[in-house]
Amino acid sequence: MMKKFTREDIQVNQLSNGQALEIKKFDLTGSKPGLHVHIQASVHGAEVQGNPVIWELLRFLGHEEVAIAGSISFIPMVNPLGSNTKSGTYTQGRFNPVTGDNWNRNFIDVIHYDKEITKFDIEKFWQENKNHEHATQVKNYKVMMEEAFDNIEAHLLHYGLSDNVEMNLRLQRQAAKADIILDLHTGPAATRYLYSGEYALKKMKDFPFPHNLIIPHEFGGAMDEASFFPWTELTHYVHEQGESFINPIECYTVELGSEEVISFSDARMDAARILMLLSKRSMIDASVVKKEYAQEIKEILEEKRYACLLKDYATYHVPQAGLIEYLKKPGEKVSKDEVLYKVLDFTPLHSLKDISHCVTQVKAQKDALIINHTPSASVTKGTIAYQVMEEYYEL
Amino acid sequence: MMKKFTREDIQVNQLSNGQALEIKKFDLTGSKPGLHVHIQASVHGAEVQGNPVIWELLRFLGHEEVAIAGSISFIPMVNPLGSNTKSGTYTQGRFNPVTGDNWNRNFIDVIHYDKEITKFDIEKFWQENKNHEHATQVKNYKVMMEEAFDNIEAHLLHYGLSDNVEMNLRLQRQAAKADIILDLHTGPAATRYLYSGEYALKKMKDFPFPHNLIIPHEFGGAMDEASFFPWTELTHYVHEQGESFINPIECYTVELGSEEVISFSDARMDAARILMLLSKRSMIDASVVKKEYAQEIKEILEEKRYACLLKDYATYHVPQAGLIEYLKKPGEKVSKDEVLYKVLDFTPLHSLKDISHCVTQVKAQKDALIINHTPSASVTKGTIAYQVMEEYYEL
Amino acid sequence: MMKKFTREDIQVNQLSNGQALEIKKFDLTGSKPGLHVHIQASVHGAEVQGNPVIWELLRFLGHEEVAIAGSISFIPMVNPLGSNTKSGTYTQGRFNPVTGDNWNRNFIDVIHYDKEITKFDIEKFWQENKNHEHATQVKNYKVMMEEAFDNIEAHLLHYGLSDNVEMNLRLQRQAAKADIILDLHTGPAATRYLYSGEYALKKMKDFPFPHNLIIPHEFGGAMDEASFFPWTELTHYVHEQGESFINPIECYTVELGSEEVISFSDARMDAARILMLLSKRSMIDASVVKKEYAQEIKEILEEKRYACLLKDYATYHVPQAGLIEYLKKPGEKVSKDEVLYKVLDFTPLHSLKDISHCVTQVKAQKDALIINHTPSASVTKGTIAYQVMEEYYEL
Amino acid sequence: MMKKFTREDIQVNQLSNGQALEIKKFDLTGSKPGLHVHIQASVHGAEVQGNPVIWELLRFLGHEEVAIAGSISFIPMVNPLGSNTKSGTYTQGRFNPVTGDNWNRNFIDVIHYDKEITKFDIEKFWQENKNHEHATQVKNYKVMMEEAFDNIEAHLLHYGLSDNVEMNLRLQRQAAKADIILDLHTGPAATRYLYSGEYALKKMKDFPFPHNLIIPHEFGGAMDEASFFPWTELTHYVHEQGESFINPIECYTVELGSEEVISFSDARMDAARILMLLSKRSMIDASVVKKEYAQEIKEILEEKRYACLLKDYATYHVPQAGLIEYLKKPGEKVSKDEVLYKVLDFTPLHSLKDISHCVTQVKAQKDALIINHTPSASVTKGTIAYQVMEEYYEL
Repeated sequence: MMKKFTREDIQVNQLSNGQALEIKKFDLTGSKPGLHVHIQASVHGAEVQGNPVIWELLRFLGHEEVAIAGSISFIPMVNPLGSNTKSGTYTQGRFNPVTGDNWNRNFIDVIHYDKEITKFDIEKFWQENKNHEHATQVKNYKVMMEEAFDNIEAHLLHYGLSDNVEMNLRLQRQAAKADIILDLHTGPAATRYLYSGEYALKKMKDFPFPHNLIIPHEFGGAMDEASFFPWTELTHYVHEQGESFINPIECYTVELGSEEVISFSDARMDAARILMLLSKRSMIDASVVKKEYAQEIKEILEEKRYACLLKDYATYHVPQAGLIEYLKKPGEKVSKDEVLYKVLDFTPLHSLKDISHCVTQVKAQKDALIINHTPSASVTKGTIAYQVMEEYYEL
Repeated sequence: MMKKFTREDIQVNQLSNGQALEIKKFDLTGSKPGLHVHIQASVHGAEVQGNPVIWELLRFLGHEEVAIAGSISFIPMVNPLGSNTKSGTYTQGRFNPVTGDNWNRNFIDVIHYDKEITKFDIEKFWQENKNHEHATQVKNYKVMMEEAFDNIEAHLLHYGLSDNVEMNLRLQRQAAKADIILDLHTGPAATRYLYSGEYALKKMKDFPFPHNLIIPHEFGGAMDEASFFPWTELTHYVHEQGESFINPIECYTVELGSEEVISFSDARMDAARILMLLSKRSMIDASVVKKEYAQEIKEILEEKRYACLLKDYATYHVPQAGLIEYLKKPGEKVSKDEVLYKVLDFTPLHSLKDISHCVTQVKAQKDALIINHTPSASVTKGTIAYQVMEEYYEL
Repeated sequence: MMKKFTREDIQVNQLSNGQALEIKKFDLTGSKPGLHVHIQASVHGAEVQGNPVIWELLRFLGHEEVAIAGSISFIPMVNPLGSNTKSGTYTQGRFNPVTGDNWNRNFIDVIHYDKEITKFDIEKFWQENKNHEHATQVKNYKVMMEEAFDNIEAHLLHYGLSDNVEMNLRLQRQAAKADIILDLHTGPAATRYLYSGEYALKKMKDFPFPHNLIIPHEFGGAMDEASFFPWTELTHYVHEQGESFINPIECYTVELGSEEVISFSDARMDAARILMLLSKRSMIDASVVKKEYAQEIKEILEEKRYACLLKDYATYHVPQAGLIEYLKKPGEKVSKDEVLYKVLDFTPLHSLKDISHCVTQVKAQKDALIINHTPSASVTKGTIAYQVMEEYYEL
Repeated sequence: MMKKFTREDIQVNQLSNGQALEIKKFDLTGSKPGLHVHIQASVHGAEVQGNPVIWELLRFLGHEEVAIAGSISFIPMVNPLGSNTKSGTYTQGRFNPVTGDNWNRNFIDVIHYDKEITKFDIEKFWQENKNHEHATQVKNYKVMMEEAFDNIEAHLLHYGLSDNVEMNLRLQRQAAKADIILDLHTGPAATRYLYSGEYALKKMKDFPFPHNLIIPHEFGGAMDEASFFPWTELTHYVHEQGESFINPIECYTVELGSEEVISFSDARMDAARILMLLSKRSMIDASVVKKEYAQEIKEILEEKRYACLLKDYATYHVPQAGLIEYLKKPGEKVSKDEVLYKVLDFTPLHSLKDISHCVTQVKAQKDALIINHTPSASVTKGTIAYQVMEEYYEL
């Protein structure tokens, strides 16, 4: 039952007083071979629940009597700059405060990057590897990816990397080594939900979450896309050749409830979900997990699970500035024409008869499942109020 | 049952594109004489629950069959600049984003202002008014205050008023006309509580709130102090002369739960508390209030009420940066040495044996009643975690 | 010499206290027919020099004896929300403080928008208009664009527009009516320069600026792209058909020096450049311009003019956090391997011998022309230091 | 010519990811006895010129052939949190972004702190030390101060120190050991000037600066006040007893031009001023300084020097929002009724005749010397425009 635990501190930024900002990578390696998992938390600084989840996983998996096959990298608090961007009490950790760049949008598209620089060439790769075994293909593709990253870094260093690109590249290179990648986020005021690529529709069923957003195989700069895109593109290319290649990786953006809060008891529940996935992937014995998390697993298995396509994920922007009372909670259902939220604004109040005109009721456009809402009552016109799943179906 | 409703728009600031920022003052005047009440909300931009409370009061008092004696001024959203200071989703409305000046600290101390400018002179006032009736004394003192404000404004205009002073002065001048002043705030993540000067210990009992902070008669720049200080100083002076003067005003900072949320149903409860005060002051018939708010009044009367002196209001700063789980909720009691909150930090994790060292438990120094905590998990060392009442007693 | 002056106030946003934020559009219409020009300033809140330029143009063109052909719309301070986003003394007006969205990236790509919604169809348009005169073609294309905007707005209103989209759409619809569009910006600490599409290489020569960036016909969400892209796409399509259509519009992003400053004397110079363009377009008599701005025109004509392609516009990110001394000024030339800037950081100082290690010198990668640098000395690693033109040539 | 150089890293804060933020203290100790000097820079994060000045001083004093008597502590970049508080490009390093608390206002008033805690007692001290030599008195008073700080820290640790108090206390304790304290700041867009207490009117003449603000012996929370106040209070007390004690310390807030810029060549000039003071205090030979800085000293000695009392230091707030052109430069003189600045606002423009109404000219109230102005053109009503010395006189 031997396990190896190591720690590596990796610089991802440097403050103007010269101090390096570092992330801590903790590696847990089992005595038997198996998959490699990459788990990180808090790319967005205010989205912190993933950190007690990492702590809970390390606590449980650290027990001497718990065996794992394969290895897991844990990186909590991956964005020290984001975690410390405050204005007032709350954490604005979503975007670089200097540039406005979202911390989860500058991951690198190794597919469309200048090939002169990357030497990353799917066609050539397939030519040389089509007759190899799948495991060798996967290994060689990862080598090509790693070389591409080396080339990109060497290229960028001439004029310097932006701070977003640097942090993103450090994480992306770690994740690119893994078979399973879990990017732990949260919503604003939110339920628990997954983002998953279409390629993983089946695999996703082994990772029990109540709400699931299915995203297309496009690159928008986020960690999950950056991680699966080289593989979905390879798979696509091979299929176009009339040949066959099985995408070996799975990658999820995992939304663990609301931002700005942590809960160690919720973290047990969240850890149980992740461990249920790992036991399906033969990395840990299901009975060992069940012994520790019997109650959590029971609750998880009782949950209904819903999914929808990203194109049916609708965003409501407030049509009228004011103060919002959010009437529907994350996880609840709303029917077409039911009132979603109220907006209070005293501007129309010129006589006592106008009192009801101060409250605008905004109704649902369609039947929907509430995924999240903005955590502030005070909004300018055009602010996002709600995000909801429409045309959702039970998994 | 005639009531007069009027609206006045008052400029309190001006944006850099030249647009005036205005507050809306709504006045409700009864057909019978009585006290004048000043109710305002959101001096701090994120503290918004007072606005639906104002709406609820206008809605109820606006009914034709509801009679009032005296008059009430309502000013919702008094700080348009603060309400719109955002960085990320949340509202940093506590201080001027340019200067850091707290929006509730630049009210004017008419007592200690340069007398050459104000012509405000308690000694001379008392000399000339000691033989008058109390009502005349009050009226004349208010006239002297108004003249002082005129003089201060004229003086400041030479070099210009800061934006904090301008907004504060506009509100202070309105409030100075009133007998009862309610400054509606909220805490961060908080229970409902009142700040009241020592002079109003008795009066305060008519205003039912579960928690009450008793503040000394000192001037720190806040609205409540600015409103009661000229009166406590006058009372003090007269008593020193061995004579008698009864302080006619009462002024409360009213903390209506947590910031960044509004609730119309909670607003009914909050409105009921205010109406219970007004009925004690003969401004509205108690039975009329009870007819509308029977359930709310029942709940309010069942609450236990606690108070403590400001010197026993303790603030916990975090001794260790990291992510906080707040274990005790606002309104709860905590015993000495009980764990108040946990802080998660992975820095000490060098081997699996260190896992428990990643969580620091911070304990209560004394028995206390939780009033509020910071609404963000992510904190640097030294951030406020909790504010609590120690040495509290039942009212 | 009759001219018509009108003003229209247009709502572009609404604050959380219910107050509308408006822009002011001033229209000046000559007595003779001619082109229509759209001039706006301060899409980015800190970039303010365009406003005194608008003032100077209105002052000069407003003189009774100055005649114009055609008409000009002036919209100063187009982004009231951006102009008022402060944190400390300076203006962070570049991106939405809530979302991080750059205020100049949400203009609408009418070409790639869902055609089901827009009914915008270049192929059909050309089918129906190929045999019309050019003027009719232009008029009809603008009508199709306006209908597309109507359709887009109607569509977006169901779920609401984001505040960025709303402001951008209001401006884009105004600009879409014009033949010449000038979007007045500034750089950070910058020289004066133009962004111009490749289509306008010839036209650009009539608009005298010392530095010129040539951008490809791609859509990245900025105002200039949104304005020229429907026309470059139409031209491209027609050429592909082996037919001919002359792009009637010209559109420039005009960078008027550094942000956070205005200068009325510089505004005379900037206005002279614009008036020189308008006189080339027969909207105003060159001699009338020369009479007022003889000295400015002389200086302008003496300037050397340089251009480069956007792909040769290089950005230096700092390789080392610290305090920067910017050695090269905007407008200056730098040679390969010459020192561009120094970074001071005391971290390496462990003995007095290390003193020189505290200063890092960063050198130019290639010969270049300095366009702008960051206006703050204090930078984290990865911050932009300089932007420069490489492979530039004299116009 | 032996000198000792040591470095100490001191934690002043801790980020939410657990990382300590440290300052670096560099100590240079001469072979001969002499005064102890404390030099720090950047309490306000954007005010950075002091850092190249510290570098220049270390560079020069580090030469083997340069001898010093006594010792000097250098702490550059004392406020890592402030230096890294950005929103947009610029540094908002003036106040804690969470609380709004100015980083230079939470230094501790050891005189008025609860004596039960501090055991700091001037009366008792004098009783016990009046017959000692001055040097012993000074040493013992410093010991009492250090004990007071120990007691305050022990007391505060129960509930935790706020981050402002912690950073301030770390610096204050270092400074309290020194005889000369230089707190290097800058103004916004500013000239070079000193703040000095009245007690140091004579001493100040040895520290050549063109502009000098004389501040009274009151405690407002700033570093300079915290450093001199215990000594001015002791001196005051002793004088009241009809006895004599000579205040041994001198302490200056040194404003080195404008914020957000560093210049190594200006740093030579600034260093020369400081070295001229140190040579007057016998810490370095004047001829050695002159050998290196002949040109700088010549220029410094040619400067006219002006002073005024703090009560005559006037602040202009803008009476009208808009865009400001600052007409008078820091260091210039302005006459009563001369135009100081213009404000551009298009709001009044309804016809071409109104064009001049868009520009408001603000005039000087009195003859004055310009010390600084706000570095942003875009201002809301009430923003500070200028700070000027009135009733100034030549030193």
